[in-house]
Amino acid sequence: MRSRFKPWAADLIDSHPEVVIPNPEEKKGKWQEVFGNKNPLHIEAGTGKGRFITGMAKANQDINYIGIELFDSVIVTALETVLEEENGIPNLRLLKVNAKKIAEYFEKGEVDRLYLNFSDPWPKTRHAKRRLTHESFLKLYQAVLPEKGEIHFKTDNRKLFEYSLTSISEYGMLLTDVSLDLHDNEPEWNIMTEYEEKFSKKGQPIYRLEAQF
Amino acid sequence: MRSRFKPWAADLIDSHPEVVIPNPEEKKGKWQEVFGNKNPLHIEAGTGKGRFITGMAKANQDINYIGIELFDSVIVTALETVLEEENGIPNLRLLKVNAKKIAEYFEKGEVDRLYLNFSDPWPKTRHAKRRLTHESFLKLYQAVLPEKGEIHFKTDNRKLFEYSLTSISEYGMLLTDVSLDLHDNEPEWNIMTEYEEKFSKKGQPIYRLEAQF
Ligand SMILES: C[S@@+](CC[C@H](N)C(=O)[O-])C[C@H]1O[C@@H](n2cnc3c(N)ncnc32)[C@H](O)[C@@H]1O
Ligand SMILES: C[S@@+](CC[C@H](N)C(=O)[O-])C[C@H]1O[C@@H](n2cnc3c(N)ncnc32)[C@H](O)[C@@H]1O
Repeated sequence: MRSRFKPWAADLIDSHPEVVIPNPEEKKGKWQEVFGNKNPLHIEAGTGKGRFITGMAKANQDINYIGIELFDSVIVTALETVLEEENGIPNLRLLKVNAKKIAEYFEKGEVDRLYLNFSDPWPKTRHAKRRLTHESFLKLYQAVLPEKGEIHFKTDNRKLFEYSLTSISEYGMLLTDVSLDLHDNEPEWNIMTEYEEKFSKKGQPIYRLEAQF
Repeated sequence: MRSRFKPWAADLIDSHPEVVIPNPEEKKGKWQEVFGNKNPLHIEAGTGKGRFITGMAKANQDINYIGIELFDSVIVTALETVLEEENGIPNLRLLKVNAKKIAEYFEKGEVDRLYLNFSDPWPKTRHAKRRLTHESFLKLYQAVLPEKGEIHFKTDNRKLFEYSLTSISEYGMLLTDVSLDLHDNEPEWNIMTEYEEKFSKKGQPIYRLEAQF
């Protein structure tokens, strides 16, 4: 996901604080003010170039979206997508931060749903703690979601998906929906991510789950 | 799984009550007496021709096994496998009964583990109640397993496996192990069933889960 180094990315990001929110810790508990409405808030951790979150925001204008991504070089593409739209994408914001810190940016219950898409697999067992479905991350998500808050997760990576099913279940969450081949009879509401397009074109099955705290 | 009608099957079964136990309700709470030891008891619901349960019994002589199957025409093959062994298979018994009735045959905690292999998929939604991982069956299994008793389930059927993951999770059980391609790096302890051999030869992935009450 790390594109070639883009020296101009940081500048473009800095010059659009209305989209890529600086100092998001100052908005904690105030995201409804930022969006100017009380619509539900759905966030994505590890947004990459933002194909999913921009597509979701355009398709569901009565939901607010925030995409969280570590790297300038990829989040800048999501920003460019917003800037290409005549009136921007009013129900979307971006955070260039580490998803580990979400509890600093959102209050308990302020986020209604969390999306994880094609998260880095960290295949080595000794790196299991870095997987975004490790119990330490589930604990973080629980800190910002309401009771019965939902996680929706897609991946092409079989081992990560196997791990996530048990990690989520052993955390005490309920699996409410599972697909082991999302593109066999793709639901009409599905919005592809960059990775999803790449891997599904190769004929690999895409795995998806919904889980509830 | 229903083989050609075998008129001799019923007779062969009747003449081996030491293997295919008649009136199993009379053994409820007394299976340790039947086996003559206090080893753990693992049962399989929907044993078919018994390749799995006979293989498991031969490989794990310190565990007692019972295979449960509705039909004469297939269970008779399991019986024949036992009869081919010079000394039979002392840690294996068969029941020609409906798995729906297991609570009539076993006391709570008398069974240590339940296996389901390639259970009939019942693809139509209106037949969901017939799937051996439907909540009404999970309730039955819970009635004979101890606290934290385990279910181990294998299938080639994607829709049945997706259904089972959510059914088991929503029942409140924990998923403790999941494989979405068992034969990619097949564990050395795996014993193939008839259906498993057939479908894995075709290159279809075999799904497997372990779950705990
Ligand atoms: C494999 S890419 C997938 C991108 C996109 N979701 C997709 O499906 O096409 C994973 C992305 O997650 C980002 N990421 C990984 N860990 C993160 C973290 N702790 N906080 C924010 N972003 C993270 C990476 O920088 C990378 O852009
Ligand atoms: C698809 S076959 C699989 C056989 C074997 N387990 C295998 O993996 O090769 C399913 C078997 O379950 C049996 N079965 C289905 N429902 C049953 C029930 N309620 N009680 C006992 N056996 C049942 C069927 O008769 C059939 O032999």
